[in-house]
Amino acid sequence: METHILLITCQDYKGLISKISTIVFENDLNILVMKEFVEEETNTFFMRSELSGFLDKDRLHAALEAILPEGAKVNINPKQKKDIVILVTKEHHCLSDLLSRHHFDQLHARIHCVIGNYNVLKDYTGRFNIPFYYVSHENKTKEQFENELYETITPHKPDYLVLAKFMRILSPDFVEKFENRIINIHHSFLPAFVGSNPYKQAYERGVKLIGATAHIVNNDLDEGPILVQKVDSVDHSCTAKSMVTIGHEVEVSVLAEALKLVLDDRVFVSGNKTIIFS
Amino acid sequence: METHILLITCQDYKGLISKISTIVFENDLNILVMKEFVEEETNTFFMRSELSGFLDKDRLHAALEAILPEGAKVNINPKQKKDIVILVTKEHHCLSDLLSRHHFDQLHARIHCVIGNYNVLKDYTGRFNIPFYYVSHENKTKEQFENELYETITPHKPDYLVLAKFMRILSPDFVEKFENRIINIHHSFLPAFVGSNPYKQAYERGVKLIGATAHIVNNDLDEGPILVQKVDSVDHSCTAKSMVTIGHEVEVSVLAEALKLVLDDRVFVSGNKTIIFS
Amino acid sequence: METHILLITCQDYKGLISKISTIVFENDLNILVMKEFVEEETNTFFMRSELSGFLDKDRLHAALEAILPEGAKVNINPKQKKDIVILVTKEHHCLSDLLSRHHFDQLHARIHCVIGNYNVLKDYTGRFNIPFYYVSHENKTKEQFENELYETITPHKPDYLVLAKFMRILSPDFVEKFENRIINIHHSFLPAFVGSNPYKQAYERGVKLIGATAHIVNNDLDEGPILVQKVDSVDHSCTAKSMVTIGHEVEVSVLAEALKLVLDDRVFVSGNKTIIFS
Amino acid sequence: METHILLITCQDYKGLISKISTIVFENDLNILVMKEFVEEETNTFFMRSELSGFLDKDRLHAALEAILPEGAKVNINPKQKKDIVILVTKEHHCLSDLLSRHHFDQLHARIHCVIGNYNVLKDYTGRFNIPFYYVSHENKTKEQFENELYETITPHKPDYLVLAKFMRILSPDFVEKFENRIINIHHSFLPAFVGSNPYKQAYERGVKLIGATAHIVNNDLDEGPILVQKVDSVDHSCTAKSMVTIGHEVEVSVLAEALKLVLDDRVFVSGNKTIIFS
Repeated sequence: METHILLITCQDYKGLISKISTIVFENDLNILVMKEFVEEETNTFFMRSELSGFLDKDRLHAALEAILPEGAKVNINPKQKKDIVILVTKEHHCLSDLLSRHHFDQLHARIHCVIGNYNVLKDYTGRFNIPFYYVSHENKTKEQFENELYETITPHKPDYLVLAKFMRILSPDFVEKFENRIINIHHSFLPAFVGSNPYKQAYERGVKLIGATAHIVNNDLDEGPILVQKVDSVDHSCTAKSMVTIGHEVEVSVLAEALKLVLDDRVFVSGNKTIIFS
Repeated sequence: METHILLITCQDYKGLISKISTIVFENDLNILVMKEFVEEETNTFFMRSELSGFLDKDRLHAALEAILPEGAKVNINPKQKKDIVILVTKEHHCLSDLLSRHHFDQLHARIHCVIGNYNVLKDYTGRFNIPFYYVSHENKTKEQFENELYETITPHKPDYLVLAKFMRILSPDFVEKFENRIINIHHSFLPAFVGSNPYKQAYERGVKLIGATAHIVNNDLDEGPILVQKVDSVDHSCTAKSMVTIGHEVEVSVLAEALKLVLDDRVFVSGNKTIIFS
Repeated sequence: METHILLITCQDYKGLISKISTIVFENDLNILVMKEFVEEETNTFFMRSELSGFLDKDRLHAALEAILPEGAKVNINPKQKKDIVILVTKEHHCLSDLLSRHHFDQLHARIHCVIGNYNVLKDYTGRFNIPFYYVSHENKTKEQFENELYETITPHKPDYLVLAKFMRILSPDFVEKFENRIINIHHSFLPAFVGSNPYKQAYERGVKLIGATAHIVNNDLDEGPILVQKVDSVDHSCTAKSMVTIGHEVEVSVLAEALKLVLDDRVFVSGNKTIIFS
Repeated sequence: METHILLITCQDYKGLISKISTIVFENDLNILVMKEFVEEETNTFFMRSELSGFLDKDRLHAALEAILPEGAKVNINPKQKKDIVILVTKEHHCLSDLLSRHHFDQLHARIHCVIGNYNVLKDYTGRFNIPFYYVSHENKTKEQFENELYETITPHKPDYLVLAKFMRILSPDFVEKFENRIINIHHSFLPAFVGSNPYKQAYERGVKLIGATAHIVNNDLDEGPILVQKVDSVDHSCTAKSMVTIGHEVEVSVLAEALKLVLDDRVFVSGNKTIIFS
């Protein structure tokens, strides 16, 4: 007897919860958890429910579509591990955390492979018996590079791409192919210090907190829907370099938490925001 | 058109949410928010919902009782300010925070009066035009003292008693008269440092964090269901006295947050635990 | 036998601590606490020390100047309450916190008066027996308004001006008269959301943390040296309005903490940064 | 030109800092950082200083001893990596964090080996080319087991033993051999939930925060001087099992931070407390 996650996004109307929960009941399913939220500005209803019982996906889908307004999005996912591909550049801290969690079966995902535009993390990845593909961006157009990335990725059919300190900017065309399925860790407390060298910027501004932001990648660089943000304290005795060290700890923690939310089907995207049922 | 809070506690069974939400719909009410939780150990279902529309309380109550298991508890409260009475001893920090919030209409409650077993906070309370009753415990048995307290309290028909650093231990008899309706702030991160002088205990133990706990009072001293806990950092340079100062800031913040949860009907008590729909 | 705070800023050289501490010893003073920091980029030495004993201020000053490099700044302050003047507009939350702390003798300062460019907080201030001056900005040039402010302030000879949600931008001329002596609370986690309506900006960006920043005012709006920053969590269910409520709690806490640091002579300003010996 | 850490513990007297810093100056050394603290109850002076320059250890030591009170403890350590041995049982989370930091040269220590009383972590340790010794406690007296541990450890001459979830209680005799040099991570916010199964205890008490404590091991189980404590939030929806998961994240973070303090020579032990110059 499996558990499934039911995800619904649609226009809200009075009686919606009653109708949905009645259909669930008529399908002989038990509601373990049910959370919903109505975004008032857009009158949009978001629902996430965990259902136990023998679930006939097509039958449930059809029954729900019959009562939901036009344009409704319904997803019914078995509660099981997702498939991911990780992209890296040279920094190891986020990758090593993900590999270690994966090794001990504590990441709700299967890491199919790691792709690096440098090969410095190849040896480390290999210690965990995960394939590493070296796809250099050098001497290639962005289009060529991204085509090569895409061809390396697609055989793995990942649910999500995880940019674990991948330092190349992806084109709108590439991002569109994985709509709302690319997770990035940004090394600042967005929207402060957008752009490069955020720790240097933070140091020069003399801030007392530095942070990191995990977000979904869309076409605007550093501007996708935010998943998780955390901060840690710094003071005058921190150098730009020691801020980097502190910041890396925050990045690791933020990415791990964001990934858990995404892999557990807890995240809806609405415009440039996320609705998260934690 | 009012908003009401619907609170249900009962044994869980399959189809419960469907039945409840259908009744809500048949009463022509709109579900603004609905949160529920099933405590697996006891198979108990807890639900809090905010409903808008013209609500016939008796009709809704009857309809719900017809489909809920025996022993179900149903509360339907208009979303409006609660009535509270505050008990104090000599320390001002929690009281002054509550009076200030109340003055600027930011406490979801009407403070009917403040009762002190000393009168040191009488002048301050008076500045906010709130009645202060001085009920000394001196030269009285606990029973006499509590009877006097009780007679001072009852004309105000409070929804909740708030012990804002009230340093007398209340008897089980007294507590029973306000079951789950007495909120206390305890000056430690329970269950560490139960008992008196927690900051001194913390200082002597050399802890690096000190905390405070807001809880509902039951018959076991310092042992009621926990509402909110917070901590703040301390280090070797803190004296027992400076720990008290830091601790007071935490106490103020914890009590304010706990009270907000209680006054918004967000708290269920289950045995010695709380379920909180925040 | 008093305690004094000795503050030194100068170019660093080898043996400096030895020379300073020897002079302190020769003045028959005991070092209770001594903290120093060298800013490497500028080779600047900052020192804060608490000294007990019968201190001859002129003698100590002269002895120190004799061994310190040219341009050194030396301050010797008795460890006692500072004098402050508070400026407000309409919002009460920071003011009421400061008044309450002051009333119970827990602010390391004497509040001489409160000045508002609206008079809505006059009644509240009066409840604490603190003078309130209403200095409207309406129908006046900025220069006229600031002259009136200045004339209201100067008789009180404040050590610091505290902008407790004072919503007028002060001119460089005015700021210069109180160099590094104006403390402001900014309603955002600077440098994110500089400018007006930061909570609305935060809401629209869908951030997961909101914050506040206390800083020293210099000529660049929202750009002075940062004293304290804190954040609190928000989620998708927060409206722009509820973010304001959460933000106000953070503002109160940040301003109180920053003020404590300043009033205890723990803050040095170096360019656009602070060095804080907490 | 090396940096050295100078650590002094002695009875306090007036002029001490002057005398110490003069000796440092006479040895032609530059004070990069100097922090000191006087524990008033015991009139004990603690100082940590970072010195740059060509340091003659014997000469500096002799000069300091000449001016320090009897019983003074002076340590002069080159600022370089320490040597550690890690003890584990079955849980991997703390070990894998330490191995990963070590691999990328971000632990200020050389891990000489890992010793387990089970061999479940042998394979993982091997992936990082660190020797793993399996020293079972089964069918042995505590004395036999600890003798075997001791013989495995001593060839490595570790500065510190790190108990990274080592679940055997060490005898006073064993602990004495490594006085103030054994670092433990305790899975609770001490002194709450001393003893076994702290997460189950926390779950049953219905706490809203769970924590972890890194401490130095002395002869009283769970009672050594505390180094670092952190907490994370939990709520009613957490099971005892999910509390363990959350708790493990806190444990990893707490142990890493504590170890950094110890390895950087920032910790003094005074009775059952720590003085930490962070």
